[in-house]
Amino acid sequence: MDYMRESLKKHEEWQGKLDIVPKMKVTGRDELSLAYTPGVAAPCLEIQKDLKLSYKLTGKGNTIAVISDGTAVLGLGNIGPEASMPVMEGKCVLFKSFANVNAVPLCINSTEVDEIVNAIYRISPSFGGINLEDFSAPRCFEIERRLKELCDIPVFHDDQHGTAIVLLAALKNALRLKKAALDRVRIVVCGAGAAGMAVAKILLDAGATDLTLVRKEGLIVRNDPTLDPYQAELAFKTNPRLLSGELALAMEGADVFIGVSAPNIVTADMVRSMNPEPIIFAMANPVPEIMPDEAKSEGAFIIGTGRSDYPNQINNVLAFPGVFRGALDARARSITESMKRAAAEAIAALVSDAELSPDYIIPPPFDPRVSAAVAQAVYEDALRNGG
Amino acid sequence: MDYMRESLKKHEEWQGKLDIVPKMKVTGRDELSLAYTPGVAAPCLEIQKDLKLSYKLTGKGNTIAVISDGTAVLGLGNIGPEASMPVMEGKCVLFKSFANVNAVPLCINSTEVDEIVNAIYRISPSFGGINLEDFSAPRCFEIERRLKELCDIPVFHDDQHGTAIVLLAALKNALRLKKAALDRVRIVVCGAGAAGMAVAKILLDAGATDLTLVRKEGLIVRNDPTLDPYQAELAFKTNPRLLSGELALAMEGADVFIGVSAPNIVTADMVRSMNPEPIIFAMANPVPEIMPDEAKSEGAFIIGTGRSDYPNQINNVLAFPGVFRGALDARARSITESMKRAAAEAIAALVSDAELSPDYIIPPPFDPRVSAAVAQAVYEDALRNGG
Repeated sequence: MDYMRESLKKHEEWQGKLDIVPKMKVTGRDELSLAYTPGVAAPCLEIQKDLKLSYKLTGKGNTIAVISDGTAVLGLGNIGPEASMPVMEGKCVLFKSFANVNAVPLCINSTEVDEIVNAIYRISPSFGGINLEDFSAPRCFEIERRLKELCDIPVFHDDQHGTAIVLLAALKNALRLKKAALDRVRIVVCGAGAAGMAVAKILLDAGATDLTLVRKEGLIVRNDPTLDPYQAELAFKTNPRLLSGELALAMEGADVFIGVSAPNIVTADMVRSMNPEPIIFAMANPVPEIMPDEAKSEGAFIIGTGRSDYPNQINNVLAFPGVFRGALDARARSITESMKRAAAEAIAALVSDAELSPDYIIPPPFDPRVSAAVAQAVYEDALRNGG
Repeated sequence: MDYMRESLKKHEEWQGKLDIVPKMKVTGRDELSLAYTPGVAAPCLEIQKDLKLSYKLTGKGNTIAVISDGTAVLGLGNIGPEASMPVMEGKCVLFKSFANVNAVPLCINSTEVDEIVNAIYRISPSFGGINLEDFSAPRCFEIERRLKELCDIPVFHDDQHGTAIVLLAALKNALRLKKAALDRVRIVVCGAGAAGMAVAKILLDAGATDLTLVRKEGLIVRNDPTLDPYQAELAFKTNPRLLSGELALAMEGADVFIGVSAPNIVTADMVRSMNPEPIIFAMANPVPEIMPDEAKSEGAFIIGTGRSDYPNQINNVLAFPGVFRGALDARARSITESMKRAAAEAIAALVSDAELSPDYIIPPPFDPRVSAAVAQAVYEDALRNGG
């Protein structure tokens, strides 16, 4: 199928992928008096007395916003707020389809951090959570940090944390299969945007000790004045041999390559320079950093991509619906590092020892067990460790 | 039925009155590839080339926001954003039920005009229209004025214009029945908040020449330094005899009383002091300015209230669903005075000469013809006169 052509036709037919529908009929005076005036004054007054009741008497507890400024949409880049809406609507479709979360697509006509933070904060009482989407780095880090400080509901930048959770799940199972330990393998993360930074952080947090981050300009190494503040901070926890140079240098002797960068930037030589039977997650979309067949022929043991037409698809949809379902059910105030690790564990645990193989380290996107398992794990972690 | 008690129970059961549901199933790879990646890139790129296509390829053309800051909710006053949400959800229910408009309930955690205007403007590309709700006067006038300047979509403060449209429709038919002309009757509008000011403006705009506006402090008269700028402007077009004093003074010799103020402030004496067989619209809710039975016994010819248990209910729901339906269908950039008058005409015209009587000057809220007739009139006016 020509997805682009067919999708355009479908979008013309749909004219918006969501409908907003009442849960009750309003066809007469009594129904109007209960759903609206005068009866509606009763829940209003209850909430005024106790704001927490908005979770019980309105949709807040099951409604999130999916928000973008359109600066880093898919592989398309900065296409603007209006043009980002088909993606935001699509994400909302997935939230409802996979986890019964009501999600409102919103786009913002500013790329200024202050303006974006203010606008989102001002409307935040309407929602039980906020999913940030497709904000470009490094602005996305500050936007998320400031919103987390201001809001008493979970704020989650999916491009960072959704990717990081699913990648951690995949890497856990890859290492299980290889009988290797996370704190003993040498890892290269290529791409220092939203996803790459978050992947590096979750891996360090989970125990990785030897991780080198690579950006377009080369390896990230401490005290480089051209780093942005977020990269500079990570530089002190990464690149233990303080290497400077290009990607090829980092790849020599590495056990794991994780790409969230650009098509075709990993060569056959680079794979051969890695330790034997390396793990390769080449997640650039739609064209990965190296094609799975080529990586395999150079000795790669396990290969994952973002694509649905190869084994081991690393797809955010494994994480975000269940993460918000669990956080909403627990009425968590934030999505903590601990909740993210719990989500990754839950995804990884769905592949049994018997099933685990180089071509099956992670459940497929439509495995119906995934979002419930993630939701349960996130929910329990929030109750146990706070959220 | 005890509406308050029953409504609270219902709200506990509903936990939010709206669901956000996909128009398509996403249960497999092909469906995912059309509604989301990779296919969704196609509509994104089309919109990037031509922003107007967002009306065709996303839900923008049939989605509005219903927004409040919670400062003037029902008769409850300033109850805050969270507590206003049951009303906003209820309004969204009515938009969908009466006119198939998708409406998103939003509340804003600021009462500062600048903050409110900025937040709404920043998210405005997500919507085809904005319905402002329950913002207190006089802030509501500036908020609406500034948003209309900033946004290229209709911005409509329903407490002002919805009320004004329905009142104009009711008054037109009352005068039709009395065989009186709008430019020849003496009118008192009591209440100088959002609704009262808008009622006064639409009546002047429709041809009223003798209209006096009354606020808590008394009659509005030009050059009173205690007036707010919006009242001061209207003062030059109203109160032609330059009367100063209390409501009772304005009532002497008046033909029409329109109340959007407070319970029980109109006395039997005041009604007797009006011209014979006056028209009385006592719309304070739930307790009107004077009870219909009392007004009738003092000689009132036609009486309308906001209540569903008396004849002639002046209810905004007769206007707002059809107004937005028509404006969205016409892709109007604003809702003009001309569109509002067309809406009022359409409502009034649904009562035939044969049906018209003192107890039936306006169709009831659930008359299924109303929203379609209003939508058609607004749509045609927008195409004919610009919108």
